[in-house]
Amino acid sequence: MTSYRYLSFLTDYGLEDGFVAACHGVGARIAPHADIIDVTHLVPPGDVRRGAAVLAQTVPYLPPAVHVAVVDPGVGTGRRGIAVAAGDSVFIGPDNGLLSWALTAAGGAVSAFSLTNRRLWLSQVAHTFHGRDIFMPVAAHLAAGAELTSAGAEIDVGGLVALPAPERQVRDFTAEGEVLTVDRFGNVQLTITGADATEIGVQAGGTMLAHFGHRQLALPFRETFGSVATGELVAYTDSAGLISIAVNGGNAAQRLGLPPGARISIAAIPQTIRP
Amino acid sequence: MTSYRYLSFLTDYGLEDGFVAACHGVGARIAPHADIIDVTHLVPPGDVRRGAAVLAQTVPYLPPAVHVAVVDPGVGTGRRGIAVAAGDSVFIGPDNGLLSWALTAAGGAVSAFSLTNRRLWLSQVAHTFHGRDIFMPVAAHLAAGAELTSAGAEIDVGGLVALPAPERQVRDFTAEGEVLTVDRFGNVQLTITGADATEIGVQAGGTMLAHFGHRQLALPFRETFGSVATGELVAYTDSAGLISIAVNGGNAAQRLGLPPGARISIAAIPQTIRP
Amino acid sequence: MTSYRYLSFLTDYGLEDGFVAACHGVGARIAPHADIIDVTHLVPPGDVRRGAAVLAQTVPYLPPAVHVAVVDPGVGTGRRGIAVAAGDSVFIGPDNGLLSWALTAAGGAVSAFSLTNRRLWLSQVAHTFHGRDIFMPVAAHLAAGAELTSAGAEIDVGGLVALPAPERQVRDFTAEGEVLTVDRFGNVQLTITGADATEIGVQAGGTMLAHFGHRQLALPFRETFGSVATGELVAYTDSAGLISIAVNGGNAAQRLGLPPGARISIAAIPQTIRP
Repeated sequence: MTSYRYLSFLTDYGLEDGFVAACHGVGARIAPHADIIDVTHLVPPGDVRRGAAVLAQTVPYLPPAVHVAVVDPGVGTGRRGIAVAAGDSVFIGPDNGLLSWALTAAGGAVSAFSLTNRRLWLSQVAHTFHGRDIFMPVAAHLAAGAELTSAGAEIDVGGLVALPAPERQVRDFTAEGEVLTVDRFGNVQLTITGADATEIGVQAGGTMLAHFGHRQLALPFRETFGSVATGELVAYTDSAGLISIAVNGGNAAQRLGLPPGARISIAAIPQTIRP
Repeated sequence: MTSYRYLSFLTDYGLEDGFVAACHGVGARIAPHADIIDVTHLVPPGDVRRGAAVLAQTVPYLPPAVHVAVVDPGVGTGRRGIAVAAGDSVFIGPDNGLLSWALTAAGGAVSAFSLTNRRLWLSQVAHTFHGRDIFMPVAAHLAAGAELTSAGAEIDVGGLVALPAPERQVRDFTAEGEVLTVDRFGNVQLTITGADATEIGVQAGGTMLAHFGHRQLALPFRETFGSVATGELVAYTDSAGLISIAVNGGNAAQRLGLPPGARISIAAIPQTIRP
Repeated sequence: MTSYRYLSFLTDYGLEDGFVAACHGVGARIAPHADIIDVTHLVPPGDVRRGAAVLAQTVPYLPPAVHVAVVDPGVGTGRRGIAVAAGDSVFIGPDNGLLSWALTAAGGAVSAFSLTNRRLWLSQVAHTFHGRDIFMPVAAHLAAGAELTSAGAEIDVGGLVALPAPERQVRDFTAEGEVLTVDRFGNVQLTITGADATEIGVQAGGTMLAHFGHRQLALPFRETFGSVATGELVAYTDSAGLISIAVNGGNAAQRLGLPPGARISIAAIPQTIRP
């Protein structure tokens, strides 16, 4: 019997209603021994891609857990609810791609189950709140020692809905990708990795050429935003290992007009190293 | 001796200050064994009615607890602080109606006490922060095993301040009510229940006629918002058992201009069933 | 061996990303016995002074803890990370003044250490996320029983970066100061204490003259905002012992145009007592 000390919880429920608390309450009733780590509940409503990015970048720092994630515009329709084993954890949520990047980050899905066993649900299920009535109760039962196989019918991990992997391509001296996400500070995180940047010659102390829309910008590439003066643009490898563009003390996404999904390519300007 | 493993906590304190944390700290000092479930702290400042609605809809999913709720524009004035037993829980807060709907949801107040016993308060009490200095410490003492009767003088449960019950009326083929609250998604929750709707012939697959202000709208009545196309209006019985109007992937309250308190009536159009 | 049951956590990370959760996860892995009390994560990005004010006013109500605070525009640059013993707690964060007012509130720094012992850090450290990779892991190790002296090289407490103490001056019949901070409700908290006010004759039931910019206002001085009619201005000694100006049911900072840092002086008008 495997049990879990921790649940994690990511949603787009917001914090102004009692939705998150109702789920916490359901979890506490079923698995009073478990602690819940809230990942975030401020995913923009229905933004599965944003939820997937935050989950994938956070899970590697969480303890083994049953991770519950609910950004679920299709709640109550035909989409499946799933429980997926990956790494030392179990991931629970709608089968709409939300979990897919986190599963990859955790080493890949090992086995998957469709949440068909109603005995692990609340006795009454609202068509619009599976977080409270299905996902959290199933997760709490697993945390309390129920076998993963009891969640429902086993399904093929190859058949799980997956978001397309974040687009990126390295060729010759250019790395192409897109804006993966924008954080609270307005820092623009690209799908291009630090390793990609190194491969094309972008290095700390040098200059990175960024090309997006009709603009071309030469940005100092540094280890941290504090290495440039306040108000200046800077590129760096961020805490998730991805290339990011920031304004020290400001908001790069607003300054540059770079929303998630925007195409961007980068290259090195090796001759202009300013250490 | 009754003790409680859980406290719950709802306020309008917001999350940008240290107010909520100070209360958590006070609770942890007095009842280190207890866990605090935050219901929400984003009730609009002073909006007792909104706080009452969120509390009443969340408490049924929480474990037995001492529920602390503070939306308290009259803090430091003559209004009483109260501790009320209902169901398997105790409710603590100002006697301004905030607790009233939750008490009803919990089966009704069984006994009530005015918080007059200063030995359960912090030694210094600020006139503007009874959440920290009175409500939470009293709650934590009760969670730690103090008798409810020790909170202060017993008072008549019939004399507690109650908000008027949410207005609704069913007659002939029409249910009349008002907007109870609007959630993060902009879903408009009415005071009209799913049972009311059933009684007047509104049913999933059919069409619901909504009448408010000078407008009349025919809305598909479905089990969930995902049953209509993105951007379309839909009515359904929500996770609290109340009729709600949503825009799939959008904000119905904004689209329709329907704030809390707006009058609305509904009826069925039985001939237009589209299954 | 000293261990701590509690960690507290204040940042400017916001709640929409997974930054706070990643830190919680790191803490849980290293110190699974510890509970984390979130002070706030909505300090405006980089606003060290605001973070310092919230921390200093909250810590007195928290249990003994390792307090982690990260508002750190200089992350990854030369600024030191520090662990400082004060009162019954340890404070951890960047050496940029963020901790200084809380240290004073806790009775003053007793000993201080530069966070140079990499064995208490995560094995990989991002230049832009010391909260996750250095501050929280060090804090969790201390909570789990590591000696404070193991954090790194001892440093002179006199050499810690300190914010200037909030400006205030009492002379003759006037107290001068500035706006320390503005809370969620728009209440304007001054650096002038309730004791200062008493000293110059300002008392509950009387009238306080406030002078700022080119404006002069006579404000009723009361025990709580609920003592004046809705929409009226009022001054009072707030829950941190400081003079505050509020609008009952409204937002005084907006009404008066008084942001943090604005200069203000107060005096009593003893002849206009209206009890």
